[in-house]
Amino acid sequence: MGRKILTAKQYASEIRVGNRFVLSQAITLVESTLATSQNLAQTIISSLLPHTGNSLRLGITGVPGVGKSTFIDQLGMILIQKGHRIAVLSVDPSSQQSKGSILGDKTRMQRLSQQDSAYIRPSAAGSHLGGVAQQTREAILLCEAAGYDVIIIETVGVGQSETLVRHMTDFFLLLMISGAGDELQGMKRGIMEMADTIAINKADDGNEQAAQVAKRNYQQALHLFPPTPGKPQPKVVTCSALHNQGLHEIWKQIQAFIAATQASNYFQQQRQQQQRNWMHELINRQLSQDFFQQERIRKILPQIEEEVLHGSITAREGAERLITLHRNC
Amino acid sequence: MGRKILTAKQYASEIRVGNRFVLSQAITLVESTLATSQNLAQTIISSLLPHTGNSLRLGITGVPGVGKSTFIDQLGMILIQKGHRIAVLSVDPSSQQSKGSILGDKTRMQRLSQQDSAYIRPSAAGSHLGGVAQQTREAILLCEAAGYDVIIIETVGVGQSETLVRHMTDFFLLLMISGAGDELQGMKRGIMEMADTIAINKADDGNEQAAQVAKRNYQQALHLFPPTPGKPQPKVVTCSALHNQGLHEIWKQIQAFIAATQASNYFQQQRQQQQRNWMHELINRQLSQDFFQQERIRKILPQIEEEVLHGSITAREGAERLITLHRNC
Repeated sequence: MGRKILTAKQYASEIRVGNRFVLSQAITLVESTLATSQNLAQTIISSLLPHTGNSLRLGITGVPGVGKSTFIDQLGMILIQKGHRIAVLSVDPSSQQSKGSILGDKTRMQRLSQQDSAYIRPSAAGSHLGGVAQQTREAILLCEAAGYDVIIIETVGVGQSETLVRHMTDFFLLLMISGAGDELQGMKRGIMEMADTIAINKADDGNEQAAQVAKRNYQQALHLFPPTPGKPQPKVVTCSALHNQGLHEIWKQIQAFIAATQASNYFQQQRQQQQRNWMHELINRQLSQDFFQQERIRKILPQIEEEVLHGSITAREGAERLITLHRNC
Repeated sequence: MGRKILTAKQYASEIRVGNRFVLSQAITLVESTLATSQNLAQTIISSLLPHTGNSLRLGITGVPGVGKSTFIDQLGMILIQKGHRIAVLSVDPSSQQSKGSILGDKTRMQRLSQQDSAYIRPSAAGSHLGGVAQQTREAILLCEAAGYDVIIIETVGVGQSETLVRHMTDFFLLLMISGAGDELQGMKRGIMEMADTIAINKADDGNEQAAQVAKRNYQQALHLFPPTPGKPQPKVVTCSALHNQGLHEIWKQIQAFIAATQASNYFQQQRQQQQRNWMHELINRQLSQDFFQQERIRKILPQIEEEVLHGSITAREGAERLITLHRNC
């Protein structure tokens, strides 16, 4: 069982011919904190870059219990039948206080995980949001180079991870269930605004009426948000992933959305904006790291922190002193 | 009606003697984007620094409809009767897409707004989260110097603003109402974890039973989170702000929490941590601004962005090129 060490070129060509094992290894390199692994990963990605970007990047979110796994399993099967190749990636940055991975269990998508045309990657156990976002973006590129043409990036509806996923996808689907009052709509305001479609799942087994009520409520709520130029108004639909009802319609809606946004150029602009923002974020992270690693900053930082902590100077004054020191060198 | 221009020293002394008009003017300086106003604001704050920090900083959040205004109005009246002086500040960063201020209406707290011992400041119309956070932190300091000993910072339960407010307060109260299913609990996971107390409001007018059920549900949910060393386990209570039921108990709970966390030193550590983090955030913001204002970066940035946008290099490569250019100069 000796493990052959591949060159970047070998990685790239194996990924291109659809070697899933090597794809997984490359994603592991992306997730590694070792400099050598990181460098290898970057070389692989750079050489694969001409083969990326040709997928539909589909974000799916919803709180635990809405039936996300069943939905993705079912939608994935439909897409495979239509000849697509599906990759499913998860973004599940642990919340700040409790560490714990909600997503990432392959067995959640029982049928899809057995398909040759599907690749399911469990969630990276990332410690900080920025790292997880970077890893996921690079995993998307690798999956695209491997020929997957629908990349599903799923996350869980608890806040910041939604924004991350929204910022790396072309279409954002919010899964909900019926039975929530007005207060839930308020709660979701920030997330609802990101959604291109809201699907009320579990509209089955006597729950159909409630789903219709929820649908109307969410439709009303969506009317409160101003339309985005170049982009169709978000829609609300009901579905039952369990009984495979409504999923074909959702897929049609997604296709119509993509066609409309490509025609209006919104699709292209959104991708470019995402790339631009991401580069800026990477720069900002690097600047911060460089700053705090400086010898002179590391020397004086504890003393200035002390003054800030004891309230003899404000945080702003402390920041200004350090910045001044940095500039004068 | 000529408006006298005050010196920093005059500002500081007027604030110290409780001149609310001058306090408001100083907060307006803090919120200004003019460099001269900013400098004046910083001089005022620096000179007032010895008189800050002696308040209880109380964060209150809850989605629209939970009765936040009535709750704060009622709690404020109770505290005034106990001899406290109350300042109410709002954090309402507009969501990324829809601009609009939910909070900030003085008339929402009808009784409190008429009290000499209460100061209510409408929400700053901040465009970006970092700016709003900075303004609110400095407004807290100014209110403390003006002798307000309970500073209530309210926000609305839609995501990032919660984290901001959590990071500048000693105690965080989450207002909820009954009638929400399991999915709401999931939705609130990120926010529930931040709460020191969850209060189920509107436990009145036939809604008492449902509130008790909600209380049990939230208590169960809270048990899922690991305890924080040095800090009492979060509690769930029911109340009716409208009928002034349960608010004295909540205040007692807050006092017990403060006493316990001061005894364990958690209180002090949390404040210090907040200050330290804030200084780092200010530094990071400044570094980014400096970087992108550099002549050589501004010159080459469009070209590198172009390459990133056309997919000939990755965002990471673009970032690395710019950083290298910056380092070599």
